[in-house]
Amino acid sequence: MIEIRVKTSKRVEALNISELVEKATGGKQGSLLHVYTPHTTCGLTINEDADPNVMRDILDALERAVPANYPYRHSEGNSDAHIKATLTGSSVTVPCLQGKPAFGTWQGIFLMEFDGPRERKVIITLI
Amino acid sequence: MIEIRVKTSKRVEALNISELVEKATGGKQGSLLHVYTPHTTCGLTINEDADPNVMRDILDALERAVPANYPYRHSEGNSDAHIKATLTGSSVTVPCLQGKPAFGTWQGIFLMEFDGPRERKVIITLI
Amino acid sequence: MIEIRVKTSKRVEALNISELVEKATGGKQGSLLHVYTPHTTCGLTINEDADPNVMRDILDALERAVPANYPYRHSEGNSDAHIKATLTGSSVTVPCLQGKPAFGTWQGIFLMEFDGPRERKVIITLI
Repeated sequence: MIEIRVKTSKRVEALNISELVEKATGGKQGSLLHVYTPHTTCGLTINEDADPNVMRDILDALERAVPANYPYRHSEGNSDAHIKATLTGSSVTVPCLQGKPAFGTWQGIFLMEFDGPRERKVIITLI
Repeated sequence: MIEIRVKTSKRVEALNISELVEKATGGKQGSLLHVYTPHTTCGLTINEDADPNVMRDILDALERAVPANYPYRHSEGNSDAHIKATLTGSSVTVPCLQGKPAFGTWQGIFLMEFDGPRERKVIITLI
Repeated sequence: MIEIRVKTSKRVEALNISELVEKATGGKQGSLLHVYTPHTTCGLTINEDADPNVMRDILDALERAVPANYPYRHSEGNSDAHIKATLTGSSVTVPCLQGKPAFGTWQGIFLMEFDGPRERKVIITLI
């Protein structure tokens, strides 16, 4: 179990953490990589890491479905972030070959910040 | 592989099962906790277990995106529940330290009931 | 780690891969089955494999929330597919008993094609 910390710089942001994750697990043996975030207003997803417009489209679509500005019950002004965190999920798992995640050509792991900017923890487990 | 059963009391409800899950795995060794529901009209998610309004906001947002009342094809009157189950997912995984899930301060595991009230099975695996 | 390939026949399609997955893992020992797709415009989900209308309702609901035809930034005409892939997720995990996934009565694993028709890889890991 390896814990890393990342800093986000906006309220809403898709931060590519693929290299950090690969560095943290490099050389270790295992057949499945588990990446987890212990927060409730950010999520994790795997998607295209080539054209940054893909992640912008994803964040924009989430905002259209779950607008930040809406009369939610929870009074901390970040209900949309909680909802988006549940829609993306708090973990991703990737099969590994000799400690290296078997990402597809276009895949990367993104921390989906929905209530930043903040420092966020990411917990990595190799099984 | 441990199976527990929980009862939901409404059609739509977010049931906090964190304590049940921790009790079921207590003392056992493992580095990853897997929680699974073998149903197709409920899901599992990890989110805030402090203010209950967060889960209400999540359920309300899912209902706005996928209304129960809509001319769906499936004729059993619970298509919205199937769709919401796919949006939340049928399992969650949490890293463990000495058999204890490494939840963040505000995190809990919720069974997301979308077609209750029912008795639901939850299958827990510690790896 | 077992890799299988499946062919989808439409742009958008829910392809039941349960039998292929069970055949690929048959007889092998493990307590958790992990199914992964290394692509960014398709996903995986577990839902009802009895009435095909359930999967149609799911695909239709995703299309209403994230229409294919919209002025997205990404210029390849498949932004909706990337967004839907993040909403469904790139992997599913199922507890296993003696190498057999502990599916519920109505459950099956579906490859959710959002930008087909294509040949898609599915990576299966048994832990």
